[in-house]
Amino acid sequence: MIRTLTFALTVALGLMALAAAAGPAAAAVVTETVVYEHDGVTLEGYLAHDDAVTGRRPGILVVHQWMGLTDNERMRAEMLAAQGYVAFAGDIYGQGIRPASRQEAQAEAGKYYGDRDLFRGRLQAGLAQLKAQPLVDPSRTAAIGYCFGGGGVLELARSGAPVTGVVSFHGSLDTPRPAAAGEVQARVLVCHGAVDPYVPAEDVQGFVAEMEAAGVDYQLVMYAGAVHAFTQKEAGDDPAAGAAYQARADRRSWQHLQAFLAGLFE
Amino acid sequence: MIRTLTFALTVALGLMALAAAAGPAAAAVVTETVVYEHDGVTLEGYLAHDDAVTGRRPGILVVHQWMGLTDNERMRAEMLAAQGYVAFAGDIYGQGIRPASRQEAQAEAGKYYGDRDLFRGRLQAGLAQLKAQPLVDPSRTAAIGYCFGGGGVLELARSGAPVTGVVSFHGSLDTPRPAAAGEVQARVLVCHGAVDPYVPAEDVQGFVAEMEAAGVDYQLVMYAGAVHAFTQKEAGDDPAAGAAYQARADRRSWQHLQAFLAGLFE
Repeated sequence: MIRTLTFALTVALGLMALAAAAGPAAAAVVTETVVYEHDGVTLEGYLAHDDAVTGRRPGILVVHQWMGLTDNERMRAEMLAAQGYVAFAGDIYGQGIRPASRQEAQAEAGKYYGDRDLFRGRLQAGLAQLKAQPLVDPSRTAAIGYCFGGGGVLELARSGAPVTGVVSFHGSLDTPRPAAAGEVQARVLVCHGAVDPYVPAEDVQGFVAEMEAAGVDYQLVMYAGAVHAFTQKEAGDDPAAGAAYQARADRRSWQHLQAFLAGLFE
Repeated sequence: MIRTLTFALTVALGLMALAAAAGPAAAAVVTETVVYEHDGVTLEGYLAHDDAVTGRRPGILVVHQWMGLTDNERMRAEMLAAQGYVAFAGDIYGQGIRPASRQEAQAEAGKYYGDRDLFRGRLQAGLAQLKAQPLVDPSRTAAIGYCFGGGGVLELARSGAPVTGVVSFHGSLDTPRPAAAGEVQARVLVCHGAVDPYVPAEDVQGFVAEMEAAGVDYQLVMYAGAVHAFTQKEAGDDPAAGAAYQARADRRSWQHLQAFLAGLFE
């Protein structure tokens, strides 16, 4: 691992209220670009922690949507850091590979949907990078992901990776490689838009059947009126488009995430 | 309303930890049998509040499963009281009508499933009784229910009753009288056993479609491995029977209830 480039001190004023819950002196979220590698490919992630919190703490991997690592994942990493976690926004695509259009995103994401070994390898590399951080307690980790990354963290769980829990936000639920009985170590939370046209009811049923057959400890929450990408402001506000931001579902799913993480690490 | 019979002071020691969260001096849950009436029929409910909490507070109606009002609902009312609510376990069947067998329960519940006007009337009578309590803020109420009562509180919501929220635990989701657009005032939380054979996936889909068409603010949570009656210890521990207690889903759904209520009344 090479640490490089910027060492940014982000005083996340907007997060101070959240930070206060984690510790009275918490206010300063420190962030850092982390360059790492998987199978000869250079990846560039983003690490965040609160320097007012001392000692090793649970670590959370954040996996990006199909546009690659963007400000969205950096924001989530900072929000998690302000709550006392070490958060690492991983990179699946590779350093500098940031699709500029939906078409490019579809093509890039398709590489990983079409090669689950590669997808799982990249996800596991992100998890390993997180666990290697000196402030992370490697026995207490979770992975969260959005859309492409939501399907990704479920894929990470299916791979049997040593992660305490995973949380998918509007991720795809199907897979060509279903979980095998007893192999999933992670507890699973799925935050699902109840009317997501990209993840229809039959996919929910298939997922439930897969998880039950594999004996996985999962929960799935459906949010009213929510379609694909409901946590992503860039998705606009027209549910008829099939993908749209919804503030209510965004807020509630974040609360469900927090309760889930607290339960994982209690 | 006639207040009668026993005035029981229940020092709910087991709930002290919960009570502590509601107020430092909270420890004494006071309970009372309440006899009331609907359409000429005498009903007998059970009221609970914490006398260390002062002033008007949100009120929660608790609606029983198909065996009628039992220790289960009294326990839930006391748990809610210990958290600072006024809780009222209502009576749908009538004073003294407490089925002694599954067959009797099926017959009794069937009367209400088969006459939704009557069912809604009884539910509304319970809500009115709750709102009439001097310690209840009638503008802040919720109704929770189990199995038969879970279907019941959804029916109460569909009726357009003035209740802030309803929560169904392993309740039926279908109805012969779907909600009409804009008529449901309550926010809805459904706590659903993911493999409940009495409430199959098509009922979940039908419910989602109904709620979406009616513009209801709902959430639905599925719990892994949970079948019907997952909060009821009397249901035994064999999921293959179709109804069984599951401690994990019981605990999590209670946490989801608490977060939902907090959100309603914040």
